[in-house]
Amino acid sequence: MRTQVAIIGAGPAGLLLSHLLAQGGVESVVLETRSEEYVAARIRAGILEHSSVELLEAAGLGGRIRTEGDHHRGIYLQWPGERHHLDFVDLAGRSVWVYGQTEVQKDLIAARKADDQEVHYEVSDVSLHDVTSDRPFVTFTDSSGATQRLDCAVIAGCDGSFGPSRHAVPAAQKFEKVYPYSWFGILADVAPSTDELIYAWHPNGFALHSMRSATVSRLYLQVPNGTDPASWSDDRIWDELATRLGHGQNGWKLNPGPITDKSVLPMRSYVQTPMRHGNLYLAGDAAHIVPPTGAKGLNLAIADVALLSKALIASLVDRNQSLADRYSDDAQRRVWRCTHFSWWMTTMLHTSGDPFDAELQLSQLRWVATSRAGATGLAENYAGLPIGY
Amino acid sequence: MRTQVAIIGAGPAGLLLSHLLAQGGVESVVLETRSEEYVAARIRAGILEHSSVELLEAAGLGGRIRTEGDHHRGIYLQWPGERHHLDFVDLAGRSVWVYGQTEVQKDLIAARKADDQEVHYEVSDVSLHDVTSDRPFVTFTDSSGATQRLDCAVIAGCDGSFGPSRHAVPAAQKFEKVYPYSWFGILADVAPSTDELIYAWHPNGFALHSMRSATVSRLYLQVPNGTDPASWSDDRIWDELATRLGHGQNGWKLNPGPITDKSVLPMRSYVQTPMRHGNLYLAGDAAHIVPPTGAKGLNLAIADVALLSKALIASLVDRNQSLADRYSDDAQRRVWRCTHFSWWMTTMLHTSGDPFDAELQLSQLRWVATSRAGATGLAENYAGLPIGY
Repeated sequence: MRTQVAIIGAGPAGLLLSHLLAQGGVESVVLETRSEEYVAARIRAGILEHSSVELLEAAGLGGRIRTEGDHHRGIYLQWPGERHHLDFVDLAGRSVWVYGQTEVQKDLIAARKADDQEVHYEVSDVSLHDVTSDRPFVTFTDSSGATQRLDCAVIAGCDGSFGPSRHAVPAAQKFEKVYPYSWFGILADVAPSTDELIYAWHPNGFALHSMRSATVSRLYLQVPNGTDPASWSDDRIWDELATRLGHGQNGWKLNPGPITDKSVLPMRSYVQTPMRHGNLYLAGDAAHIVPPTGAKGLNLAIADVALLSKALIASLVDRNQSLADRYSDDAQRRVWRCTHFSWWMTTMLHTSGDPFDAELQLSQLRWVATSRAGATGLAENYAGLPIGY
Repeated sequence: MRTQVAIIGAGPAGLLLSHLLAQGGVESVVLETRSEEYVAARIRAGILEHSSVELLEAAGLGGRIRTEGDHHRGIYLQWPGERHHLDFVDLAGRSVWVYGQTEVQKDLIAARKADDQEVHYEVSDVSLHDVTSDRPFVTFTDSSGATQRLDCAVIAGCDGSFGPSRHAVPAAQKFEKVYPYSWFGILADVAPSTDELIYAWHPNGFALHSMRSATVSRLYLQVPNGTDPASWSDDRIWDELATRLGHGQNGWKLNPGPITDKSVLPMRSYVQTPMRHGNLYLAGDAAHIVPPTGAKGLNLAIADVALLSKALIASLVDRNQSLADRYSDDAQRRVWRCTHFSWWMTTMLHTSGDPFDAELQLSQLRWVATSRAGATGLAENYAGLPIGY
């Protein structure tokens, strides 16, 4: 097999890259170890930044966001006794959409099928070769068990933190921070008890009330690392959510409902640089992981792909290497902005057990919620800086 | 002896309190363990917030600030290769004055003398008694060696972190953070190489170029705790300052000169609450210490005294206890704002040795320097929130 760009990974980063490349006249083949059904059903992020929505719309992928997504002007920030609404539109002229990664994935799969994109699902033994040469190639075993070789001009590593691409950059500098707490997340078949997300600081730990749709709520509790989801009864989960989210304060009520999914997510920050090695380029989780506070993971992958698609089109169609040469540096600037913001939201909202930290957090929350500069700083980062920041 | 308010400590907090109380018709006696000359010469802070200047001016103490102080519109924030000016006037409508604590102290001593304020210097064995009763009193040995008793309605503890007042609040909650680095400060007889302060992040550690006057520079280097000032030669100090402050970048030059003072300052955050116990009230360093980054120590003491003087005048003249009852809570709100800001400035600018932290710092500095919201957040905290925040 031969193509211009071998894309490893058919998640949002890989499929969006193949879509944008195709629109720019560059052909690609996508390789994915999982099945199409698995990738489509994977529960991940749920918030799209302003810039991500603009980019998806410009790429013809925005139809269902407007009709089925939920436009949010901002978020609620709260601590015991106080709940403040931060209106991003008012503060920063930008906003966000609640639209699950599963929906983005469905839209991308449909668009790539309509375009006859070659995607090989359920491949194995993916291996990258000669990435610093002019003739890199990828070998893999296809779903029928046959060994395959895919020759290309460029390999795009969109295969997340467990794929082989990140390991194909020798001497990469790696930055990592592991947080001493996890998120216990539930999905529940109940209408959300709030119109926009509630980020709650509480002495017992952070809680987040998010949602997937008008009938499905998504809620999270800060828990110690290593917590077994099975060790929490449904009643205990709802009781603790009610406590941390302020059930009963100013008449607000948290409505419980049947829990359909429980999982515990560890939290870490990870950045690998450079994001290019010869003719291998990394995008999305293959190069960086952020903790979920602030909802940056999917949006950062989209921003990487926006830069990378332009760089590869310029390189392969116009024979202009300047954007490709700058790709890693350009992407890293936003990567660190989002890494910093995610770290900042995380450390502002999660309790450490140190009383000094708790008072710093409360003072910071009060300032962010009541100073226009403080609120705008959160808003412009949360709603997302323009692509190309 | 008998007075209405026994003030322990004749630093800026104690003398300003006696001044404001006198203007409100409340008499006080001030006790100080050091000599007048020692207190007047003590080198401390050098930056007055907008609100501090307003308060001193309203109290008739602003004359020399306008003629001999140096009005600064903002600061420079820099890291290798980049220097950004943050104009606080433009960003937050407020600004700061470079006017040394020694000058504030001189103004206060002169004003209190003109008013025949009773100040006992070089006292010893200061002890607080019956602070929760209606008849508290202070015993001490005066400079002649005689034992004295000062009866009063209220005791004001303005005696800093080494005085007895803070220990007279039983069961106080204490919050502390010790930083893993110190400031190596020098005074030099050389014109400052900058018109406004330069806060510099550098891989070697933080550096600050401040000034005392048109002919005296004040500069600081982040050093490990326990550094012996004598172990650094003058040449080494100037070389390291030149490196960290970017001598030679874009034509900027650091002018060295004779070093007249070297000292190493450890850095910590400390907050004690409540700030009232019966008829004992704490103000300034007696209740809280901030690291010097952000120049909040003196300003926070002035803000405490502004609240405390109003509360005591209302209590002792108008027999209205409401402000006195709220004093600790009201003061603590600003204390934690300044404690958070000082911690934030400190942790943004001082290197920890962790490469992940360094990249977070650089991303945060870039955002603060280039986002109007980010810059305004720094500006409004640095130039100081209004008294009563």
